[in-house]
Amino acid sequence: MGNYKELWTKLGVDLEKHDKLCAVLPEMYGNTYLTQENRPQGMNYFNSVVAEIHGFRIQELDELKKKGTKVVGTFCVFVPDEIILAAGAVGVGLCAGSEFWVEDGEKVLPRNMCPLIKALMGAKVGGTCPYFQSCDMIIGETTCDGKKKAWEVLDKYVPVHVMEIPQMKRDKDYKLWASEIKEFINKMEELTGNKITVESLKAAMKTVSEKRKALKRLYDLRKYKPSPISGLDSLLISQIAFYDDPERFTQKLNELCDELEERVKEDKGNCGTKKRILITGTPMALPNWKLHSIIESLDAEVVVEENCTGTRYFENQVSSEGETMEQLITNISDRYLNINCACFTPNTGRIDDIVRYVKEYNIDGVIDADLAFCHTYAVESSSVEKELKDRNIPIMHIETDYSTEDSGQIKTRVEAFLEML
Amino acid sequence: MGNYKELWTKLGVDLEKHDKLCAVLPEMYGNTYLTQENRPQGMNYFNSVVAEIHGFRIQELDELKKKGTKVVGTFCVFVPDEIILAAGAVGVGLCAGSEFWVEDGEKVLPRNMCPLIKALMGAKVGGTCPYFQSCDMIIGETTCDGKKKAWEVLDKYVPVHVMEIPQMKRDKDYKLWASEIKEFINKMEELTGNKITVESLKAAMKTVSEKRKALKRLYDLRKYKPSPISGLDSLLISQIAFYDDPERFTQKLNELCDELEERVKEDKGNCGTKKRILITGTPMALPNWKLHSIIESLDAEVVVEENCTGTRYFENQVSSEGETMEQLITNISDRYLNINCACFTPNTGRIDDIVRYVKEYNIDGVIDADLAFCHTYAVESSSVEKELKDRNIPIMHIETDYSTEDSGQIKTRVEAFLEML
Ligand code: SF4
Ligand code: SF4
Ligand code: SF4
Ligand code: SF4
Repeated sequence: MGNYKELWTKLGVDLEKHDKLCAVLPEMYGNTYLTQENRPQGMNYFNSVVAEIHGFRIQELDELKKKGTKVVGTFCVFVPDEIILAAGAVGVGLCAGSEFWVEDGEKVLPRNMCPLIKALMGAKVGGTCPYFQSCDMIIGETTCDGKKKAWEVLDKYVPVHVMEIPQMKRDKDYKLWASEIKEFINKMEELTGNKITVESLKAAMKTVSEKRKALKRLYDLRKYKPSPISGLDSLLISQIAFYDDPERFTQKLNELCDELEERVKEDKGNCGTKKRILITGTPMALPNWKLHSIIESLDAEVVVEENCTGTRYFENQVSSEGETMEQLITNISDRYLNINCACFTPNTGRIDDIVRYVKEYNIDGVIDADLAFCHTYAVESSSVEKELKDRNIPIMHIETDYSTEDSGQIKTRVEAFLEML
Repeated sequence: MGNYKELWTKLGVDLEKHDKLCAVLPEMYGNTYLTQENRPQGMNYFNSVVAEIHGFRIQELDELKKKGTKVVGTFCVFVPDEIILAAGAVGVGLCAGSEFWVEDGEKVLPRNMCPLIKALMGAKVGGTCPYFQSCDMIIGETTCDGKKKAWEVLDKYVPVHVMEIPQMKRDKDYKLWASEIKEFINKMEELTGNKITVESLKAAMKTVSEKRKALKRLYDLRKYKPSPISGLDSLLISQIAFYDDPERFTQKLNELCDELEERVKEDKGNCGTKKRILITGTPMALPNWKLHSIIESLDAEVVVEENCTGTRYFENQVSSEGETMEQLITNISDRYLNINCACFTPNTGRIDDIVRYVKEYNIDGVIDADLAFCHTYAVESSSVEKELKDRNIPIMHIETDYSTEDSGQIKTRVEAFLEML
């Protein structure tokens, strides 16, 4: 990584602590990613993004900020990127996927909370994430109890605007959600000083739609047997999608997909022997590669993730029909409220998604992987298990956090599961 | 207790398991309650309610059910009793305060959830609560993640209607809540076959209002120094308020209050030496007397509970003004959405309540007592602590469950806290 100390200092990063983070990441990445055989050429771009993770993109953001552009951080796929872009701001889906941040988070939050929430808080409290430090505003949501209440604490460190996510999906909930999107538009206009117009919103919708299409193209390629790309690489791409420049990201991902299409043609006839795994559950934020790395160290490949760093991020497009703000807001509201997160009651759409993917991706087994202390997914895991077993789809449940303490035990359990398939 | 085996069998109670519960409760009650000195005469009624806890009232409910009356179970003070009563049904605030039910709950729910939710589920799954068995319908709500998702599981055992509690308290949230109350009215009309009219609703509002007034009267009497009634006795009365016949309850409580008024007059001049404690936090459902019993075994008395088995249940009356359903629904909606539960973001009204009670009740120290794994209260505890310390109000935080394992440790901590006051 280049020398960004001056930039980090300006952002108020705790340099000494941050150095420790910078010291572990490259080794972890090297061991997990660079040891993979036969990686596509197109992964070079994504390798370089990781190599420069707290450098190049932070510098880009800094240059934009100098020109008056606002940076807005998000932690949930419910917050519509389209609105942020349409206001001329930059959206950064913050990661919070490392054990590194948990300790600082526990200084202001209870220990028995999901590691994602503790990590997001720790990254800010400890001042060790330059992305977080670049944000002018954070957009929170009322999805789960932990995040809902954590925003009250986070607001003491950086301005937080909270969107109320309804808890059900009836007509009136769609209306509430549409009104929350309207308020979000006002908030973004206020922050940036830019008015969101039908034109700017349509342009932003197109950018986001192209990104979703590219991700969908990647996932469609993973349906081939064998998948032309590892689950690990695919996960990394999804994770980078949250904070990279959307247009560059889309272009690079499409280039990679061109290469993968060639691979698929060459691979024809070779069906592969690896067990094909679907992962469902809570998000896997950068650099949480724990489960993929365990699974792919065995005779198996992860070919689809039914989670928020997977299909829930890109499935279903926003309809571009309509020429009024009202209509576009309804389109956005409809697309987003269709995301099947366990924070809704009921959330039977998630089962339908999993069952459909099992067919489409030729799945041998499903792993329901949830972060510890996430109540909504933990309770839902029993009905997911029941519904899948009723359909003779093999499934196992793993509850884990960011530490590596339980990696050996998880590996043993996954091995036993794979043998059964 | 009389012989109710036949009745319990009819209700589908697991007699053998239930016997175990019946075996522990009287001893526990005897040790905790009957050893108290100088109890008011008026507590005799409440003693008898406990002695007959799974008998007399269950028989009353059975007789009502024979006449076609429906029994509706609730688990949160947000569900408006007025509507249940107005439909001619009987509301039962179910308790779920015993460790006894936790084990059965853990069969269908994750272990790391709040004991109240595990106990409520366990009571139904194990078939060991005749109240639960008497219920024709359960009314759930989307207050916290754990309950929100638990209703999906419970619905497999008994019909559950879920009310969507908004996550904030803005104008549109009041509207959403009013519309949920309207739906609840429809649901109750459907269940009972009775139409709710302005007249029946007004009558029900009056009954509930009288009950709230009696509870308020009790709490006002606790403001005297020394309090004419122990915290333990007062807690028991609040707990019984949730399932006793409301009119009888109100009458008996008012009789007790007459007696307490006499005591206050006699006690004049004697200011008492005990430290006066306010408890804030999560509800204490029957028979959870753990913390009160620890505190009152020391030189202290609990004189007010800012929780849902305390002030949140009876504070603020529903306005009886207006002659249309629309207006009455708005009145009900306004009263209920003013309850300051940590499930809202933000929830600063709770701090205001605590600070006001500290003055009104002459409080020496505050104990913030939360059930383990309750995320919303756990996160809020840090801001409660900060706000109180800023005002020089002594506060300690206790996180606990229904087991007695940590009782010794809690006693030591409370002792140290009391010495500091
Ligand atoms: S799992 Fe739910 S709360 Fe978490 S990012 Fe996804 S949609 Fe948001
Ligand atoms: S994993 Fe669960 S508890 Fe953690 S942030 Fe997501 S929804 Fe909330
Ligand atoms: S603490 Fe909140 S969720 Fe629990 S009973 Fe009270 S109002 Fe309902
Ligand atoms: S104590 Fe907390 S977690 Fe338990 S039911 Fe009440 S609000 Fe939910």
